[in-house]
Amino acid sequence: MLALMERLWPINRSITGAGLRETLQIIAEYLPGLRTIEVPSGQQVLDWQIPEEWEITDAFLKDPDGNIVADFKENNLSVLGYSTAIDARLSLEELLPHLHTLPEQPDVIPYVTSYYQKNWGFCIAESKKQGLKLGTYHACIKAKHFKGSLTYGELILPGTSEKEVLISTYCCHPSMANNELSGPCVAVGLASWLQGLSHRHYTYRFVFIPEMIGSAAYLEANSIHLKEHVIAGFNLTCVGDERTWSFLPSRLENTYADKVALYALQTYCGSYDRYGWKDRGSDESMYCAPGIDLPVVSVMRSKYGTYPEYHTSLDTIGGVVTAEGLNGSLDLHKHIVRILENDCYPKSLVLGEPQLGKRGLYPMISAKGSTAPVKNRLNLISYADGNHSLLDIAVKCDIPFEELISEVALLKENHILSSLPV
Amino acid sequence: MLALMERLWPINRSITGAGLRETLQIIAEYLPGLRTIEVPSGQQVLDWQIPEEWEITDAFLKDPDGNIVADFKENNLSVLGYSTAIDARLSLEELLPHLHTLPEQPDVIPYVTSYYQKNWGFCIAESKKQGLKLGTYHACIKAKHFKGSLTYGELILPGTSEKEVLISTYCCHPSMANNELSGPCVAVGLASWLQGLSHRHYTYRFVFIPEMIGSAAYLEANSIHLKEHVIAGFNLTCVGDERTWSFLPSRLENTYADKVALYALQTYCGSYDRYGWKDRGSDESMYCAPGIDLPVVSVMRSKYGTYPEYHTSLDTIGGVVTAEGLNGSLDLHKHIVRILENDCYPKSLVLGEPQLGKRGLYPMISAKGSTAPVKNRLNLISYADGNHSLLDIAVKCDIPFEELISEVALLKENHILSSLPV
Amino acid sequence: MLALMERLWPINRSITGAGLRETLQIIAEYLPGLRTIEVPSGQQVLDWQIPEEWEITDAFLKDPDGNIVADFKENNLSVLGYSTAIDARLSLEELLPHLHTLPEQPDVIPYVTSYYQKNWGFCIAESKKQGLKLGTYHACIKAKHFKGSLTYGELILPGTSEKEVLISTYCCHPSMANNELSGPCVAVGLASWLQGLSHRHYTYRFVFIPEMIGSAAYLEANSIHLKEHVIAGFNLTCVGDERTWSFLPSRLENTYADKVALYALQTYCGSYDRYGWKDRGSDESMYCAPGIDLPVVSVMRSKYGTYPEYHTSLDTIGGVVTAEGLNGSLDLHKHIVRILENDCYPKSLVLGEPQLGKRGLYPMISAKGSTAPVKNRLNLISYADGNHSLLDIAVKCDIPFEELISEVALLKENHILSSLPV
Repeated sequence: MLALMERLWPINRSITGAGLRETLQIIAEYLPGLRTIEVPSGQQVLDWQIPEEWEITDAFLKDPDGNIVADFKENNLSVLGYSTAIDARLSLEELLPHLHTLPEQPDVIPYVTSYYQKNWGFCIAESKKQGLKLGTYHACIKAKHFKGSLTYGELILPGTSEKEVLISTYCCHPSMANNELSGPCVAVGLASWLQGLSHRHYTYRFVFIPEMIGSAAYLEANSIHLKEHVIAGFNLTCVGDERTWSFLPSRLENTYADKVALYALQTYCGSYDRYGWKDRGSDESMYCAPGIDLPVVSVMRSKYGTYPEYHTSLDTIGGVVTAEGLNGSLDLHKHIVRILENDCYPKSLVLGEPQLGKRGLYPMISAKGSTAPVKNRLNLISYADGNHSLLDIAVKCDIPFEELISEVALLKENHILSSLPV
Repeated sequence: MLALMERLWPINRSITGAGLRETLQIIAEYLPGLRTIEVPSGQQVLDWQIPEEWEITDAFLKDPDGNIVADFKENNLSVLGYSTAIDARLSLEELLPHLHTLPEQPDVIPYVTSYYQKNWGFCIAESKKQGLKLGTYHACIKAKHFKGSLTYGELILPGTSEKEVLISTYCCHPSMANNELSGPCVAVGLASWLQGLSHRHYTYRFVFIPEMIGSAAYLEANSIHLKEHVIAGFNLTCVGDERTWSFLPSRLENTYADKVALYALQTYCGSYDRYGWKDRGSDESMYCAPGIDLPVVSVMRSKYGTYPEYHTSLDTIGGVVTAEGLNGSLDLHKHIVRILENDCYPKSLVLGEPQLGKRGLYPMISAKGSTAPVKNRLNLISYADGNHSLLDIAVKCDIPFEELISEVALLKENHILSSLPV
Repeated sequence: MLALMERLWPINRSITGAGLRETLQIIAEYLPGLRTIEVPSGQQVLDWQIPEEWEITDAFLKDPDGNIVADFKENNLSVLGYSTAIDARLSLEELLPHLHTLPEQPDVIPYVTSYYQKNWGFCIAESKKQGLKLGTYHACIKAKHFKGSLTYGELILPGTSEKEVLISTYCCHPSMANNELSGPCVAVGLASWLQGLSHRHYTYRFVFIPEMIGSAAYLEANSIHLKEHVIAGFNLTCVGDERTWSFLPSRLENTYADKVALYALQTYCGSYDRYGWKDRGSDESMYCAPGIDLPVVSVMRSKYGTYPEYHTSLDTIGGVVTAEGLNGSLDLHKHIVRILENDCYPKSLVLGEPQLGKRGLYPMISAKGSTAPVKNRLNLISYADGNHSLLDIAVKCDIPFEELISEVALLKENHILSSLPV
């Protein structure tokens, strides 16, 4: 995943355009079957409209002495995202309204965009801005906007069930690592692993979109199907660092996706930061909106908006994202998939407590403490009333989910349990 | 309100009779439209019977030396409420069973009544009783009971909706300030304010009654109408001091009135004493009784029974009640009315998260932290699913209710929201 | 109860056989009407099969010098329960796999059985085992297994209602006191007391069974009837010591039996250890199993498995069980019965708060604090809406249940309340 991230890093992504398209092409090399869809500029998607494409070839800002103040080729955050073209000499006073900085973090270049109002601008460190002297500056941005299309990718991995798990991630951010190359990279890792599985119960739907406008476009085309099929969804974002674990719920905060994600976090991570719906800030707003109501949650490392490097030039590979961070996120999402794939409603086939002894499932000698090794088995059977899911039983009886999986298999072999789908 | 209270102070009120009638006439001067209703003695009202009227013109108790021990003209608490007549010379021993004191508060005259068993008596300070010497006392109470009627007042302020808010208060207590001239006085203030409003959504029903027998009489005549129309009711009592805030719930403790009152107390007062239904002691017993089941709560300052001056000659204007105390209560009840009038179920008119930017409702430049100013707007929209009331959203997202009111107006203008009645 | 226990103590009980049968005959002396039922060996009962009877006449183990190592006549725990016969000379090495000890408690004889796999063995103290020397041992167990039957006892005490309270206890353990002669002994005490009552609302069903196989057998014959009639059930076990009180819930943890038992424990015992369903270990597993779903709980003193003497030769009369322990348990279960017998849904016959004064149920003089003595009465009436049981009201208003019983009687006399069955 880190190698993929390094390859994607230099590309100047935006919510439309060549950078986004190139990113999806590279991802498709790793994920055979990934389909890309183009939605034309101007098309209405839910309450939104697909914007024009943005093409930028070069941009620089020179001070009165001809020194470079900002250079797009050096860092693609240097230009206001979706900036209009400019080639002009201006006084410092004229220039200043077009310079974006982060006064609280004086040494970083901030990530700033102006998608929905045409404007031009540069993003630089506050400390650099403070040192600018009077005189005539040369601002040059070689960019154009034109009717084109918005691109997104989709990969569907069929399972035996028509019920689906949705994994959505966004790839519209330029060179920043945790937010947001980590999401697409872990999504690629997860999809590859799922492609390699010999059996999938659920159908897995991976979606690679530009944030917000992309989920609007995707829902415009797919919302009815998704509402009927998706049992759990995950917005894969900010999954690259090692600092903490975070959970952001769905809007209703009590869907099946919430339950599974919380259980996975509790058992896999121990401690994590639990956010509320009001702390959201990404595609879940679209997926969970009233009338859409998909059960989409986010299981993250350091959540967007909470770590100092967020949306700045400091959000780098190495600086924030590590191989271990990415691998941990992948492992946790595999753990989530294992829970989803194996959860069920066990139902006893025997009236009353079954006699396990005659099936070799119980200690032969009965003495003080002799039932301890089969306690979990007895508890599983006792709650196998068709009203408690395996996940419910794991939580209620504090039994590791993996142990329940193998116990269910054993008890099904012995005709003690059947299992109903979730 | 304090001026009104000073005017009402000297009147000797009881659950029937001239004092009650005069009180209602004075209130009517402040509240044009207040209607008084007479219910004849002997009439059955629910499980109760309207008692005879009580007329008292003078009362005194003289000691063997002719010194005044108790004088009705000086303090109308000096006579047992609803006392029968007496004009007799008695020994101290004969007198003692007719003297009511409060041994734990030896210097106060207690408020004592005997409404439902005929008796005569005087109320004096325990310290005075201790000093009484042997000899012949002259007890004189010029009073009579006769078939008359019970009087109560009613003011209906129509709104655009037939749904009603009930404000009930009682005016059967003689000269005591917090309990209970404060209730009628704040009710007058609240009704005047409501009369001055250009628009009222709900119909407001103000009821000025003698306690318990009055609510029985009122329900006898109106319970079916009230059960169909009242969405929230408030028993206005003990609203005159500045010491604390108190809440007494409805019997079911979870009605809409409870929710609104608790939210108002939390946001307006910060801290308050929260009582349970079992701490009740006034007309809510009648209004919330099984089979009546009106959603009536009490939002008070120092609750009856909990402050030392309660039901004694110390419950005075100045001693307990202040202008600031009354005004604070009025303001809080206005706050409650504003919540009631503006609460609704907002419902999004847009599928998915709306694009606020194109409507000028979103920051044009998107950078780190740029959405903070519109966070509350986004949360309101996100919960506008028709299942969350404005009050629910205020609580859930910790947004001031006033801000939600103006946001709803703005978003309705922009065709993003509609709103359904509560 | 202690005398009965001393009489039952020496008998060698097992899940079938002469000891169990003799125990039930002695119990029948105390409980006229107790019926014994025989279920033949080999019969299928739910998922289980009735085993052969076990008859043992003598057993001993001698060391190479002829010294007695274990003697069944001295302590019937010395033989592995349900042991097969043996009469052989063996080396120490051959013997060791057949010696059962408790290494953590080196000086006690443990209680060990092998009901569902044929085996022979002795149970001795670990310290004794450590001292065994090399040489030839003589192991002799004069026992046989044969087709016979399993015996259980049943006593039904009819009430005016067809609804039933189930009291189940087990008597398959040899000479141990708390677990498990205390259960049958307290059951005898409780049944005797119930037989002496002039009026019983519920029908009481007492069941004396061998553990697990006995409840399977009982349910095979009676489960349909029980599911239709039992409103609360109690597994009477470990009720003989004075150390603590314990509660084990039903499987669903919120049945009527759970509510009544918890209230009784809180009010009668103050503090107690509250266990969860996953801590179970007796017949409730069978009674509450999915598809059976009887509301069976256990109200115990020191719970099985939690006290050091459990399932060892130290669980003796005097060492663990005391007369006071047994009596306390009996009293608590009588308390439970009184709650069950008197619980109801009171319903007001009066619309609005009734006027208690005219019925002599309210203080005649109304003064500060005068309603305190009738507060509980007023609260009872206020919650008498047909939705709150007497138990609910006791909990909600913190009123002693006994006081509610007499208040209900008084208010029914006065035609203020009726009561609906639970």
